[in-house]
Amino acid sequence: MGASGGPVHEALAALPLTDHHCHGVVTGAPAAEEFESLLTEGEMWPGSGITPFDSPAGIAVRRHCAPLLDLPRHAPAEQYLRRRSALGPCEVNRRFLTAAHTDVFCVDTGFAPQPVTTAAELAECAGDGAVAYEVVRLESVAEAVAARGVEPDEYAQAFRSAAERAVRRPGVVTVKSVAAYRTGFDLDPARPGAAEVTEAARRWSARGGRLADPVLVRHLLWTAVDLGLPLQLHTGFGDADIRLHRVDPTRLTDWLHLVAGTVPVLFLHCWPYQRQAGYLAAVFEQVYLDLGLTLHHVGPARARAVLEEALEITPPRKLLYSSDAYGVAEFYWLGALAFRRGLAELLQDRVDADELSLPDALRFARWAGADNARRVYRLSDSH
Amino acid sequence: MGASGGPVHEALAALPLTDHHCHGVVTGAPAAEEFESLLTEGEMWPGSGITPFDSPAGIAVRRHCAPLLDLPRHAPAEQYLRRRSALGPCEVNRRFLTAAHTDVFCVDTGFAPQPVTTAAELAECAGDGAVAYEVVRLESVAEAVAARGVEPDEYAQAFRSAAERAVRRPGVVTVKSVAAYRTGFDLDPARPGAAEVTEAARRWSARGGRLADPVLVRHLLWTAVDLGLPLQLHTGFGDADIRLHRVDPTRLTDWLHLVAGTVPVLFLHCWPYQRQAGYLAAVFEQVYLDLGLTLHHVGPARARAVLEEALEITPPRKLLYSSDAYGVAEFYWLGALAFRRGLAELLQDRVDADELSLPDALRFARWAGADNARRVYRLSDSH
Amino acid sequence: MGASGGPVHEALAALPLTDHHCHGVVTGAPAAEEFESLLTEGEMWPGSGITPFDSPAGIAVRRHCAPLLDLPRHAPAEQYLRRRSALGPCEVNRRFLTAAHTDVFCVDTGFAPQPVTTAAELAECAGDGAVAYEVVRLESVAEAVAARGVEPDEYAQAFRSAAERAVRRPGVVTVKSVAAYRTGFDLDPARPGAAEVTEAARRWSARGGRLADPVLVRHLLWTAVDLGLPLQLHTGFGDADIRLHRVDPTRLTDWLHLVAGTVPVLFLHCWPYQRQAGYLAAVFEQVYLDLGLTLHHVGPARARAVLEEALEITPPRKLLYSSDAYGVAEFYWLGALAFRRGLAELLQDRVDADELSLPDALRFARWAGADNARRVYRLSDSH
Repeated sequence: MGASGGPVHEALAALPLTDHHCHGVVTGAPAAEEFESLLTEGEMWPGSGITPFDSPAGIAVRRHCAPLLDLPRHAPAEQYLRRRSALGPCEVNRRFLTAAHTDVFCVDTGFAPQPVTTAAELAECAGDGAVAYEVVRLESVAEAVAARGVEPDEYAQAFRSAAERAVRRPGVVTVKSVAAYRTGFDLDPARPGAAEVTEAARRWSARGGRLADPVLVRHLLWTAVDLGLPLQLHTGFGDADIRLHRVDPTRLTDWLHLVAGTVPVLFLHCWPYQRQAGYLAAVFEQVYLDLGLTLHHVGPARARAVLEEALEITPPRKLLYSSDAYGVAEFYWLGALAFRRGLAELLQDRVDADELSLPDALRFARWAGADNARRVYRLSDSH
Repeated sequence: MGASGGPVHEALAALPLTDHHCHGVVTGAPAAEEFESLLTEGEMWPGSGITPFDSPAGIAVRRHCAPLLDLPRHAPAEQYLRRRSALGPCEVNRRFLTAAHTDVFCVDTGFAPQPVTTAAELAECAGDGAVAYEVVRLESVAEAVAARGVEPDEYAQAFRSAAERAVRRPGVVTVKSVAAYRTGFDLDPARPGAAEVTEAARRWSARGGRLADPVLVRHLLWTAVDLGLPLQLHTGFGDADIRLHRVDPTRLTDWLHLVAGTVPVLFLHCWPYQRQAGYLAAVFEQVYLDLGLTLHHVGPARARAVLEEALEITPPRKLLYSSDAYGVAEFYWLGALAFRRGLAELLQDRVDADELSLPDALRFARWAGADNARRVYRLSDSH
Repeated sequence: MGASGGPVHEALAALPLTDHHCHGVVTGAPAAEEFESLLTEGEMWPGSGITPFDSPAGIAVRRHCAPLLDLPRHAPAEQYLRRRSALGPCEVNRRFLTAAHTDVFCVDTGFAPQPVTTAAELAECAGDGAVAYEVVRLESVAEAVAARGVEPDEYAQAFRSAAERAVRRPGVVTVKSVAAYRTGFDLDPARPGAAEVTEAARRWSARGGRLADPVLVRHLLWTAVDLGLPLQLHTGFGDADIRLHRVDPTRLTDWLHLVAGTVPVLFLHCWPYQRQAGYLAAVFEQVYLDLGLTLHHVGPARARAVLEEALEITPPRKLLYSSDAYGVAEFYWLGALAFRRGLAELLQDRVDADELSLPDALRFARWAGADNARRVYRLSDSH
């Protein structure tokens, strides 16, 4: 019964999800090549004979998204692109976002190489009273401070003030860091001293570019702690800018000890370190995890297998749902589908094998799908 | 048939296990909070809404231990604690330890933050002629030497003598190191020179605290080799004191080359590095592994999946069974249950698929469940 | 249907494989002990009670190779060895190589601790018009240059010339490096300067031994780029000479960025880093992977599980087949069997679950089994 139905499947189908980490959808109708490039964490490789439509995410789009555009399952790429274009972006976005049956979105608005919807616009697409909260990406705040020009010895205070202003805006519920992309997690765990930060700010100011100095990345993480909001950390899988061997989340263990008792820390995506993230969630009160973009990139065919590893030792209070969708509306739907189906199969099979009681399974599904995020971000009960 | 029955299941059910690494049970009746804290490698987090009874280990306790206390499967935590308390520790321990159907225990007596049973008391609980051998934890020996006060230039000899005395006691069959907790496995593989050890002992003496100096940890490992007994090494998963990224057992490869031809080395627990431990067991004659506390922490629902990875390339002469149970009698039973069921499903399914002959499967089950440990520790045939 | 049959199984059974990385078979009839030692990446351990016939690879030999020698499935080792010896090496090799149904072999001829067949002899054994191409192992070229004697300041040019001559020979389609064995992948990614190479060549000349200097290994990788042919890189699992924790392929990410747009890079074997290799294949146009010797070492019982991880996010254009067979003909057959069955089960189950269309599944099977290798190595269509 686990694979196809049963009460856990029904409960998760009926439960509006809380997507605690996602991005906006590109505004306007993406051209074919732009759409394809949004399907992959790689690049487009013209002339290679390789198309993202053949990757696991592309296969899932053709299988699970085509029917929502009134196409047959496994529709060819050309047909899919044609139909998508004919329907227009508003209708396409509406169909996928309503199908995702997600009523809360926490939107990282600090990453937008293309123009994308605002958090409010995204919620509007989803309809039915969906609401959107905002995730403040701290590297973007720091880089905006640097872009305005700041004396090195004023950087720490200027960043702190800008971050405080950013999180004080209505609807902001959490902050995020992409330290994983900038330095990886092999950081001195200690809070850097003022002189050290000034010296690093001087180096950054001289060199320019994005924030990637280890001292400033540490300073950013400690500033996040001072802000008092939950901290989301990109972890594991991403584009070619990641150095995957440096982003095992257990490399942050010393830092997690130092910041215990302060803010919740949420490891995003995690693959292929889902077991390592689960270990941290099991032994540190403040640690949570999700599978994020892993879900749509491995697709419904493997979502359960990855969830099984993520939950091997993880307390069920510690798993959250996110789509990490960016750019195309398909991924809100695919992420929700893969999460619902993978988690339901896992839980229902355990119920069917009498390894888990049905009330426990239903409770855990509700927690992971919505309640855990609402607790961590203190979202009101009306949402 | 694999999941529910068949000759391999029957053979493993009938086979008394050799639990080559475990600890004592707390003496007396643990209070509710102490019991819960013994279920997790984390801490108790009051007010968090998180209880170890919801974790995979807690779920397994409520499912598989409740019936042994005459409760329904999946009994609620409160009911479980009440009944456990009503039966009293002697009866509870007796029920779980006899259900584990284990006739040999190798007991690490060097870790006891609470008062726990001695090796002999543990065997007595298990009844039916069970015997207990002792595991000498070398860090405890070294720390006792330091606590008595020793000149730095006499430390090496004093530790060596104390270790020799400790292992000469009757019933001692193996030594153990928790180097994983103290430094991790990124150690210079070479035996440290006398002057180096003296200097490190001087530093330790000045600083105090537990043994965590890399030179002294190396010295401890080399002293273990000199003692001539098998050496158990904590590996991978444990409490928040572990730095998981530093305890991949393949980090010890250089050292394993240097000590080839001396003592057996047994990697304990291993998760999430079970494949890495399997690789070492496949290419080094002296290397063995078990899954230890992984089994009860992932529970019967995932024990087979982890065993599948552990056995991907591992010679079947190299897998041992241990519960690594500490504190609560439930874990002797859960470890034995998860091991028996996981291994039986794996082997029986291969027999059913005609990938393995039944005689081979039965032989491998017997080896992993008892014979391998008896060979490594040269236990007499009467046990 | 996935496990036992269906159109994907039939298609893969009918498809002649391209084995893009293998070695020769020992010439002559191996004695019993030599045969056993060729079954394992470990050593023979006389007196240990451990025989490679009990390991997963040995189990698979007794299950899947015995019938091809007219023996019952699961034949005992002694019977197997007797029959193998009675048939003689020619007949044994012919049976396994034709059963492998492989019509293209790319043969690494640079590793031969024993006398083994040449590439042409191997193809002849396989019969039916099979052809063999050659893989030039660059470390062997460099070591031959050093063995002839070369001034340190002429080493770079001499190695470059020798490599160019080696790859210009007819039938050479690719080069290979075993940098994984020599230094691991934690290398400075930049091309070393001339003075640096001379200095390193001087050190090597003074010290002798095999090529293992980090500067010279880097230089070798960059020379491979200059040669313009695809570059195979041993990755992950191998014998005890590997330091497994240093060969996660993502450690080469910086280097992959620097060489993007030049030659294809093929990660061989990969286990237990198949997910990491899949990530690189997903985000770098030039990266490909295979499972190589993993397939026969884990055996048909686990080949699918490892393939599932390898393909979690990998574009299907990026997976190749290789047996990495060395020494015994059994492994060409076992590798092919494990690959065909594992991949067919994975794809057919997805077709049966309607997660993948049958035409896509058939296309992906053909790509991984043959077409991808033919494209990468620009093999002619007649082969």
